[in-house]
Formats: sequence, C-alpha cells, structure tokens
Amino acid sequence: MPIPTALKAFAGEIDSVLDDLIDRAEGHEAKLFDAMRYAALLGGKRLRPFLVVASADMFLVRRDCSLRVGAAVEMVHAYSLVHDDLPCMDDDDLRRGQPATHKKFDEATAVLAGDTLLTKAFEILGARETHELAEVRSDLVHALAIAAGGHGMTGGQMIDLVAEGQRLEIPEITRLQAMKTGALLAFSCEAGAILGRATHTQRAALHGYAHDLGLAFQIKDDLLDVEGDAAKVGKSVGKDATAGKATFVSILGVDRARQQAQMLADQAIAHLRDFGTDADRLRDVARFVVERDS
Amino acid sequence: MPIPTALKAFAGEIDSVLDDLIDRAEGHEAKLFDAMRYAALLGGKRLRPFLVVASADMFLVRRDCSLRVGAAVEMVHAYSLVHDDLPCMDDDDLRRGQPATHKKFDEATAVLAGDTLLTKAFEILGARETHELAEVRSDLVHALAIAAGGHGMTGGQMIDLVAEGQRLEIPEITRLQAMKTGALLAFSCEAGAILGRATHTQRAALHGYAHDLGLAFQIKDDLLDVEGDAAKVGKSVGKDATAGKATFVSILGVDRARQQAQMLADQAIAHLRDFGTDADRLRDVARFVVERDS
Repeated sequence: MPIPTALKAFAGEIDSVLDDLIDRAEGHEAKLFDAMRYAALLGGKRLRPFLVVASADMFLVRRDCSLRVGAAVEMVHAYSLVHDDLPCMDDDDLRRGQPATHKKFDEATAVLAGDTLLTKAFEILGARETHELAEVRSDLVHALAIAAGGHGMTGGQMIDLVAEGQRLEIPEITRLQAMKTGALLAFSCEAGAILGRATHTQRAALHGYAHDLGLAFQIKDDLLDVEGDAAKVGKSVGKDATAGKATFVSILGVDRARQQAQMLADQAIAHLRDFGTDADRLRDVARFVVERDS
Repeated sequence: MPIPTALKAFAGEIDSVLDDLIDRAEGHEAKLFDAMRYAALLGGKRLRPFLVVASADMFLVRRDCSLRVGAAVEMVHAYSLVHDDLPCMDDDDLRRGQPATHKKFDEATAVLAGDTLLTKAFEILGARETHELAEVRSDLVHALAIAAGGHGMTGGQMIDLVAEGQRLEIPEITRLQAMKTGALLAFSCEAGAILGRATHTQRAALHGYAHDLGLAFQIKDDLLDVEGDAAKVGKSVGKDATAGKATFVSILGVDRARQQAQMLADQAIAHLRDFGTDADRLRDVARFVVERDS
C-alpha cells in the first residue's frame, strides 16, 4: 500500500484510540476535555504514531500496545502545537485551516489543554495496559521526557524564539530542527524498539533513521513553503520568506536544498540495512517524506 | 524539631537537589533553563517534597530516592504556578514578593519553562536513579500523571477559571480544591508509600490523610487571606474578598471555617492510627497546617 493511502487508513485507527483515551467529562471541567479533544483530533498527517506502529511492527509488538504509545506521542505533538500557536509564541489563529485551540476556546483553556495533553501522554505510558513489563513502561517515559524536554522539543522551540530575526547558519538550523521536530520523531521510532525489546544496536539504527528522516522532512517543509501549492499544502505558503526566517532553503537555495533532502532520505534508509524486508514500510516513509506535495 | 524549623532546614536540602537536577545550558536555549531554575528555586514552603520525604521515611526509603521524587513534585507545583500567573490565567505579576516568571523573562519563555518543568518531573520519575525497581518508577509516573491531570490539578484550575464570579456552594468548592491543590498533596504522601512498597491499606491511609490535610490547608489559606498579617503571609491579603471569590470563609464565616479546618486536621491525623510513632512527623504537619500564621 502506498504511504499516502496507508496514512489515510491509519488516521482513522489512531483517531479512534485518541477518542477513547481522552475522557468526556461533565461539570465545569468539561471545557478542558473538549479543548483537548479538539486539539488532538483536529487532523494532521499522524506521521508520529504511524512511525511508532511501523517500528513496533518490525518486532511483532501487539498493535493495541503500539497504538497507545502512538496516541501518547500524538498528544505530545498536539500539545506543542497548541502552545506554539498562542499569541505570546507564534501567534497563529489557524491550524490546519481551522481556528487554533486558543481561538476556538480561549487562551487560558488552550494553556491548560496543552498541559493536560502532555500529562495524559505520560499517564498512558505509565499504565499497565501499555505494556506488561514495567521496565518497558518506565523506559518509554524516560525516553519521551528527554525527547520532549529542554534538550529536545521545548529547547528547540526556545532557540527558534530567541533566534528570530537572527541569521542562523546551517549547523545552527540543523541543531534547532533536530531538537524542535527531530527529537520527537526519533522517539517515535525508538518507541517501537523499546516496546519490542530490541537490541541496543537496533534501537540506535532506528534513532539514526529517524534523525535523518526528521531533517529531510523539515527541508521538504521549507521547500513546500517556497514552491508548494497552498491548496495542497493546506496552509499559506511563502510565510518563511515574509517573516525573514532563515531556513534550509533560504540559505542553500532550492536546488541544493532538494539534493540535501534526498541525500538525507537515502541516508535514513541506509541505517535500516540490517533489518531486511521488515523495514520496507519505514523505507517507503523516507521516500514519501521527500516526494510528497503536501 | 518543630515543623517550621524542620521545613526551613529541609528547604536547603531540596533546593540543592533541584539545583542539581535542572541543567545549566549554553546557547540560545540557556534562557529556558534560567527560567526553569528561577521558577523552581524561587522559594516557597516546600511542603510537597517535605511530605514525600516524611512519608517515605516511614518505610525507610533511601533519602536520595525520596528527595528526587520530592524534587519532581516540586517541579510540577512550580510549573503550575508559572502557568497560573500568566496574563491569560490569574494574571499575577508577583509570586512570593518577586516578579512572576513571565515578568522576569517573558510570556513565551514562561509557557515553555512550565512545559519543560512538567516534562522534567516525569524524566526524573522514569530514571533508574530514582528507584531500582521499574515497577516503582512506573507506578510513580502513573500516579503523578493522574494527580496533575484533568481529573486532578489542571481540572481544578479549569473549574476555578470557569466558575469565576459564580457563587459556588461548599460541596463544589471542596471538589474544586480537592482537585486543584489536594490531588498533588495526596500524591506527595502516596509517593512515599509507592517508594516504600507499602501495602494497599497503608497507601490508602496516606491518601486519606493527605486529602484531609489538603482541605485543611486550603481553608487555613482562606482564613489567612481574611485575618492574616500581610507581612507574615508574604502576599497581599484580602484578595479573595476584593475579587468576589467564593471561598470556604466567605460561605462558612470565620468561626465555622476555623472549626472546619481543625476538624479536618484531626481527621487527617485519625487516618494515621495504624502507623504508631513512625507517623509523628506527619501528625505534626497536620497540626502545623492549621496553626501557622503564614
């Protein structure tokens, strides 16, 4: 099955798990849960949970377990978008063509919904239903916290805010993106290895794959911002240039950026050499990431 | 040792653990870590980590382990204060007489510092240094996430925001406070039981103790707001009445509120009946909570 088709089919599956995991509440706190559901179920590619499940499948992990971990990762991703869209951060009113959570509800609710999605992700990873072995649950928690923390996702977001308007060079942009988006993507692939009790070498290979995949993904995003079709991309294009933002494309130019993305995708695939056909799905993802038009 | 003296001595100990656990970073992300340190080391009673260590001591838990868990709980408390003080939430410029984190830094940094403190708390609980048994680490994560989540702390904060200006009755205020502040206090005591591999009955007794303690603590806070000495309390008093906020005192009156706090403290102590002298420290805390003048 081609990746776009597989992603579409998977979106329904992960949405139903997210829907199950986020309670419906009564009373004054209902608003909080409504906002969490809104933020987590608003759509998106669902690439992170897809990577969790695809990696876990290589080790024959039970699908109900990998789907729970995928849902936890998606909640962390959703929380980061809710907080990033706040007026004091990137100040975006729209997300995927819909009102951002703080516009649909209000800022206070958006802050709390983000906080609670993050908290819920750890609740899921710590729950017995996620894996029978406490060692696995505890490793998942530890690895996710590192990926989402100050040396990972939130640290990357801080750098992005502080560096606004500054001219960053390629090594700095690479580091920023590896933290801001790469760390959670890398966790998504590592989570499959943790769930599957993979060897240290296998886990490192998946980490390497996801690291390169994340950068390829980001460069392609930058390319789509320059040459993409707004209708297909689903958001306004040309935003980076207007904002005077240093991106891979603004520094490398379109041609070299495209070569770089392709090289990273090839490099990502090379990390999978010891996995045989079990890793075909992940190889397809790497090709898809640089070929997509949205 | 009287509780105020013990708390003062303990503050130095837990601050040094917090100081160790929050990295110092270089580069653009340094600001994030500075804000985390500022928020977590700004002071406060350190009641939550004190309860973790006091409960864990009853089960002869290694102090380096209980201090790490205490630090994690204090980070969650600190994150909640940083986010609560934001302009879109309670809009407080001062915290403990010092500029709130978003005033000392900026709003975006405060949002990210709060997010990262919360994430760091789970990283600590998931780390091997916290307890050699993965079962214990995983249970701590799960219990903290429930206490800090939508049916606990953030849910209570949501209710507080939604109910602003509405006249709540005692059962509703009790529920709100049990969620907003009680759940994390209850976790603090339960954490000692989890670390100490206590029986289910012992864990339930500590949960009951902490639940009543939390309400007694809140009523005493409301009383101090009405009749406290601003210099001693360390924050402006009379705030609740000015804000037209329904509190235990505004509904019950001062005398009945005082009786109620005393009754809850007695009830908290009653939960400890099976622990003998091991629980003397916790009994002292319950008495202190209703007798304090700040």
